[in-house]
Parts: sequence; C-alpha cells; structure tokens
Amino acid sequence: MSFDLERTVAVLERTPQTLAVLLRDLPDEWSRANEGAKTFSPYDVIGHLIHGERTDWMARARIILEHGEKRPFDRYDRFAQERESAGHTLGTLLEELARLRRQNLLALRDLKLTPSDLDRRGMHPVLGPVTLRQLLATWAVHDLTHIHQISRAMAYQYRNDVGPWKVYLGVLRCQGHSD
Amino acid sequence: MSFDLERTVAVLERTPQTLAVLLRDLPDEWSRANEGAKTFSPYDVIGHLIHGERTDWMARARIILEHGEKRPFDRYDRFAQERESAGHTLGTLLEELARLRRQNLLALRDLKLTPSDLDRRGMHPVLGPVTLRQLLATWAVHDLTHIHQISRAMAYQYRNDVGPWKVYLGVLRCQGHSD
Repeated sequence: MSFDLERTVAVLERTPQTLAVLLRDLPDEWSRANEGAKTFSPYDVIGHLIHGERTDWMARARIILEHGEKRPFDRYDRFAQERESAGHTLGTLLEELARLRRQNLLALRDLKLTPSDLDRRGMHPVLGPVTLRQLLATWAVHDLTHIHQISRAMAYQYRNDVGPWKVYLGVLRCQGHSD
Repeated sequence: MSFDLERTVAVLERTPQTLAVLLRDLPDEWSRANEGAKTFSPYDVIGHLIHGERTDWMARARIILEHGEKRPFDRYDRFAQERESAGHTLGTLLEELARLRRQNLLALRDLKLTPSDLDRRGMHPVLGPVTLRQLLATWAVHDLTHIHQISRAMAYQYRNDVGPWKVYLGVLRCQGHSD
C-alpha cells in the first residue's frame, strides 16, 4: 500500500474513540504510570495528542499551502502537556481530543486536496523539506506510535508480575521509543 | 503497582471493544496487511486472540485449580487462526472475541479467587512452574502485546510514506516482536 488520503482519514478518525475505550475510567495505576523518568504515561500522551491537534498537523498543512518552503514550521513542544493538561481529568482530555480531531478532519476535508496539492513542499525546522503527503502520513503514524507507546507503558507496570512468560511478550522487550 | 485482580480485569474487559473501534470497517489495506513472511496482520491477531479465549487462559486457570503442577498445560497453537478464521469477516471475528471474553470474565468472577488461590502453581510445558497470578497478569499483558503489534503492523504500511519523519516515530523502529 502507498499513501491514500481516505485511508489516512480512516485511521485518524478512529484514534480518539479507540483511546477513550482503552483508557476511560481505567484505574490511575494504569493511566498515570509511566516507564521511568522523562517518559509519558497514557495520561501524558493524551495531552500530547491534544497539543498536536491545536498547534501541529493542520497548522503545518496550512503553512505548506500558503507559504511553501519559504516559511519553516514552528518547533513542536513535546512537553507542552505538562502545563496544558494540569488540573484536567483524563475523561475531559479524551473528550477534548475527540472534539479537536473532528474539527481538524472537517477542516482537512474542506481543503479538497488534489494529488498535486499533496506534492507541495514545506520546510521542517530540523528535517528540511517535506511534502504535504508526508505530513498527513505522519499524522496517522504518530497516532499509531502513541497507541503503541500506551500499550507498552501499561504492560511495563506488570513486567515482573508475568514471571517466566516475560520471554514471550514482545511488548516487554520493545526498544522502539520515540525520540 | 503490583498485581491486582480487579485492575487486571479492568484491562481484559476493555480489549475487545478497543480493537473493535480501531479495526471495524477499516480498509483491508490496513487490516489484512502484515510486516512480512510469518508475521500477523491485525485480522490474524483477532483470530489468535479468539483461539486464546477458547483454549488457553481460563482452560489453564482451571488446570491449575484442579490439578496443580501434576498436569502440564496443553501446548498453545500460535497458528490455529489460519484454519479457524478462514471464511470469517473481521467484523464477525471482533464480535466473537467480545462474546468469548465476556463469558470468560464471568467464569473468572465465579471462581471467587482468594490471594492463596492466586499463589497456586501449575506447570507450563516449556517455562516450568508458574502461578495462577502470573497466568492472569500474562493474559492482560498478552492483550497489550497484541495492541502494540497491531499498531506496529499498521504503521509499517506507511513506513516509506512518512519520509524524513521516520526518525521520530518509535513504532517504525520497534524490534519488540513476540516470539
């Protein structure tokens, strides 16, 4: 398979509800626990995804369409959720993520992107030139990398409780942490 | 956190619906694609989880409670779904997984396990002695390892489409495959 806009949206539109079913009303021992210093708990991840909906994906798509490579994207703050999530319950954050994602997917549809739009290029402040197609593919894979991370962070809490079965459970050996 | 029965059930009861929201009506390009020879697609994983509900987790719990270490568990067939899923749609399999999981969690509750029950031991045919507590912890982490695997298998389909962003996406570097 190679990139397809409708199939990309099919992933993006499922993520908020997938995370809501997985995490809503889950005991804090699962949702607030991380994998050690400077790693994200499931709660942190939801705040991070919200920040992305507000400042990253569609904002960058618009920069590409309006300014091309002349105007580099703003840097992304990977730790913004430490400020922005403060005081919010996980349930509230999950609803906010769903609301923002719906809004962003409506805005994406309104752009009526053509294949040649998808070839348009922008300037990532670190990675250099990227296309709109790559940005949208990354939006979907970014969702998947965080589902992957949440399942790993949860499994980590039981890393000793599984006893000898540890050797069969790939999630407990995963070193695929995002930079 | 260490093992707690209610918290373990909190994960187990969410898995079928999490997978249903993630996968139901998703284009086959996502749900039927794998990571190469002898790896599982999301569709394969659902069949594998169904086989586990039928033959593994609660069956092994009963063997521990009835026979202890005297009667080793039956070997688990990791490729049973190649026969058993044949001809079934993904939607049908997701419903079957939900039905079997509900049934098994009711049966688990009926056992009214005490802490000393959880210490009881059984005999794994390869790993040797294991406790009922370890078996139940593994049931939950096994769900998580397959959510982890599904997100990785899906991300893999866009491994080239994300372009230079690849370096930031941990899921594309994950080597935590289950044996």
